[in-house]
Amino acid sequence: MSDSREQILEQIKLQGDLVRQLKGAKESKEKIDEEVARLLALKAKLGGDVAPASQKFTLKTPKGTRDYGPQQMTLRQGVLDKIVQVFKRHGGEAIDTPVFELKEVLTGKYGEDSKLIYDLKDQGGEILSMRYDLTVPLARYLAMNKISSIKRYHIAKVYRRDNPAMTRGRYREFYQCDFDIAGTYDPMLADAECVKIVSEILDTLEIGDYVIKLNHRQLLDGMFEACGVPAESFRTICSAVDKLDKSPWADVRKEMVTEKGLDEATADRIGEYVRLSGGTELVEQLLADPKLKAVSNAVKGLEGMQLLLKYCSIFGLDKRVSFDLSLARGLDYYTGVIYEGVLKAESGSSSSPAKSAQQNGEPAEQATIGSVAGGGRYDNLVGMFDPRGKAVPCVGVSIGVERIFSVLEARFAASKVKLRTNDVEAYVASAHKGLHEQRLRVLNQLWDAGIKAEHSYKLNPKLLAQLQHCEEHQIPLVVVLGDAELAQGLVKLREVTTRQETSVKLEDLPAEIKRRQQA
Amino acid sequence: MSDSREQILEQIKLQGDLVRQLKGAKESKEKIDEEVARLLALKAKLGGDVAPASQKFTLKTPKGTRDYGPQQMTLRQGVLDKIVQVFKRHGGEAIDTPVFELKEVLTGKYGEDSKLIYDLKDQGGEILSMRYDLTVPLARYLAMNKISSIKRYHIAKVYRRDNPAMTRGRYREFYQCDFDIAGTYDPMLADAECVKIVSEILDTLEIGDYVIKLNHRQLLDGMFEACGVPAESFRTICSAVDKLDKSPWADVRKEMVTEKGLDEATADRIGEYVRLSGGTELVEQLLADPKLKAVSNAVKGLEGMQLLLKYCSIFGLDKRVSFDLSLARGLDYYTGVIYEGVLKAESGSSSSPAKSAQQNGEPAEQATIGSVAGGGRYDNLVGMFDPRGKAVPCVGVSIGVERIFSVLEARFAASKVKLRTNDVEAYVASAHKGLHEQRLRVLNQLWDAGIKAEHSYKLNPKLLAQLQHCEEHQIPLVVVLGDAELAQGLVKLREVTTRQETSVKLEDLPAEIKRRQQA
Repeated sequence: MSDSREQILEQIKLQGDLVRQLKGAKESKEKIDEEVARLLALKAKLGGDVAPASQKFTLKTPKGTRDYGPQQMTLRQGVLDKIVQVFKRHGGEAIDTPVFELKEVLTGKYGEDSKLIYDLKDQGGEILSMRYDLTVPLARYLAMNKISSIKRYHIAKVYRRDNPAMTRGRYREFYQCDFDIAGTYDPMLADAECVKIVSEILDTLEIGDYVIKLNHRQLLDGMFEACGVPAESFRTICSAVDKLDKSPWADVRKEMVTEKGLDEATADRIGEYVRLSGGTELVEQLLADPKLKAVSNAVKGLEGMQLLLKYCSIFGLDKRVSFDLSLARGLDYYTGVIYEGVLKAESGSSSSPAKSAQQNGEPAEQATIGSVAGGGRYDNLVGMFDPRGKAVPCVGVSIGVERIFSVLEARFAASKVKLRTNDVEAYVASAHKGLHEQRLRVLNQLWDAGIKAEHSYKLNPKLLAQLQHCEEHQIPLVVVLGDAELAQGLVKLREVTTRQETSVKLEDLPAEIKRRQQA
Repeated sequence: MSDSREQILEQIKLQGDLVRQLKGAKESKEKIDEEVARLLALKAKLGGDVAPASQKFTLKTPKGTRDYGPQQMTLRQGVLDKIVQVFKRHGGEAIDTPVFELKEVLTGKYGEDSKLIYDLKDQGGEILSMRYDLTVPLARYLAMNKISSIKRYHIAKVYRRDNPAMTRGRYREFYQCDFDIAGTYDPMLADAECVKIVSEILDTLEIGDYVIKLNHRQLLDGMFEACGVPAESFRTICSAVDKLDKSPWADVRKEMVTEKGLDEATADRIGEYVRLSGGTELVEQLLADPKLKAVSNAVKGLEGMQLLLKYCSIFGLDKRVSFDLSLARGLDYYTGVIYEGVLKAESGSSSSPAKSAQQNGEPAEQATIGSVAGGGRYDNLVGMFDPRGKAVPCVGVSIGVERIFSVLEARFAASKVKLRTNDVEAYVASAHKGLHEQRLRVLNQLWDAGIKAEHSYKLNPKLLAQLQHCEEHQIPLVVVLGDAELAQGLVKLREVTTRQETSVKLEDLPAEIKRRQQA
């Protein structure tokens, strides 16, 4: 059941890289030690099949998963808070669903990717699988509760038995962060708002320059038809086009012709279209294109794009959106507009990132971060769950928070800024022995006044150790207790950064701390 | 694989009760419809083994799980926010761990309850199980990362294949909400702070009067020894004592004697002790007890209790805590202080709740809510994961948030208050046809100013429908657009509750809305 030797060697290589990277970035000792421990654990695995008697098994999290320590949680919470703020600005309401579903609920929704679904063991009772995304559970929720309109967001973990490249921020357990608008509405009003939401989120997170690519499934189908693709091959050719963000056209063309049996002339006609991107002028150009003009789906898709671009323009997004015929997206269930938010490669001091990456022998992180949001319209998914097939049209967007976390974690690792992982406002310290009960009394006074406060859980800690704790944990104030001052009803209040001390009356302490916090 | 007929009939009965209860409490139509739909789905199951052709399977969530709709999420988020505030007041840092662990991590930690663990199917690779609590993952995390001190909180779902009584707020998927202090510290300082945390949380949630019962595993062991229980029976007799919160002494005594082979005189001696509860005076009385005085474990446990009660007194908890010799707690891993926060039965107009419950033929909800927090010290769990057995002493508390949610949900259902599930500050409405682009422009202005705003996604919605939407969703302000005002650069700002309207210059609109929000 354990990983093969090759897998372990590969893990050791990746983990070694990570440790070197962290050391290079002068990360905290704690973090480096953590990762070194993982490296040693991996190396220990190679020591032989039999684990040392004292340890029954290798301590690790399941493959493709990770713990989040306080630093990561602080970063993550900050990102999610900002995203939720945007969702709420657009009237979003939260829902949550179980982490697993009846297996039948997930069956037939993900095409080929269904093999990546985690199943639970049959322990008697129902047959269950872990959720693969948050969209199918939403559709099940809407159909089951006969809800015909909702604007909901859902932030939760989903599960895919993928082969993850964890250094690229891909995991088997990862957060999704979805906003969807369900309901029968007029064309593109909800769709354009989803694009606006992506833009607000990427702006507020300040993770770099980005573009939101837009396309339309109906236009893609019309374009395939106009190029002479047989109808039964639309989806498979669409998934070939989907690879254009990672592979050059030559490779995609080869896949179409060699693997999918498309004739060369048809592939070349597709090639002409998928290299196009632009704005409303491109829509007009395509509406005048003789081949597309003749295909009803193409015209409908283009008219949809025209309306979407107009609304995006009203939302001030002209410079953020790009109508891009190479955008296809993998999932089968999209029926209308599709979009994808892509981080642009950072233009550094050297030439192009792709070029400097090649010099390093591996793709540059910034150049390959790629998609950080994606979504589209799926009008038929809810109907698949309704006994009478009643449809609830939906459009939504999923924010790629794991990639966003990775970008921000790398940025923090590279900078010297250490994130504060606690909110403690005041630390209560003893200047000498025998004061622990006094400390508890002062702490209780502070807590009851709503002040975030802590102390050493030792009876007689050294003053220096207590002050060091405050510096390490970036606690701004220390209340220093000493018999002499206490006898006069006083304590010392010390600012950690300036080391400035003031005497404060014990009864004034909470008010004084609050005053300092606001200053 | 589907539930047996008996199980379905039982579910129908429970669901029918729930629907009647909701109707009695005049719950929202949406909520009642939701539950009626579930009832109908259950009844449909009995229609025959073959489901109707139009529906391939019954739409439901897995047994023992539920969706959380916007109302429930709002309530839940409010509760969790308050709890996190208390955790942070005490310097807590957040961590998160994967929802599943290597099966070996969970093996041997939960005793008999291990049969309730959800296993994942073997799909090649590692053998995994869903986490059963947050304590064992914490211990694994500490050992794996060689962390010897942390003050962490963790709020996440855990999984138990229990036979849930969902009407009592028990589920197979449920939230745990844990705060633990790990580290080698002086006695009872961290332990007393956990009691303080429970008290602050129960105070801030205002869910009713409560008592925090305290006991000590060492004292229990010493007491068993003093009564003549053989050492090898300590744990099994302890788990019999644990049932005293639900069963009368006579039943527990019977279990000890008949099932566990304890002799009657020993059982009776235990019976003398476990009916005792009190404060420091009880500790002193027991320290003078000739039988206990002779047993080292009993003396150590009592001395621990003495110190704990002293610290609790400094924290102002004299009236909140009760030293209770009947408190045992189920889990094997506790090694020191144990505690449990219990909601007191509400003294209503009738006699005692227990009595009035018996009149109804079932236990009264308020009388059986019982434990809403629990925890204790477990000094050996981390060592079980460390290759060299290095111990990290821990003490912690788990808040029973699901029961708290149930209490609050019932309270909201009974009251006429409808929770707001959105934060929208202003709704942008059209007074007549043809204004949708103007609406988008105004919305964009509001969003860019950080104002929470929404509109109908219809081109030409009726004004009345738009105003009704605001009343239903408790949105305070409506911006009404009309050609006549727009020509002068004006919009109407309408207060939903008072129906008062004012003309506002378009460019002043964001500032005016913010001003109203603060007023």
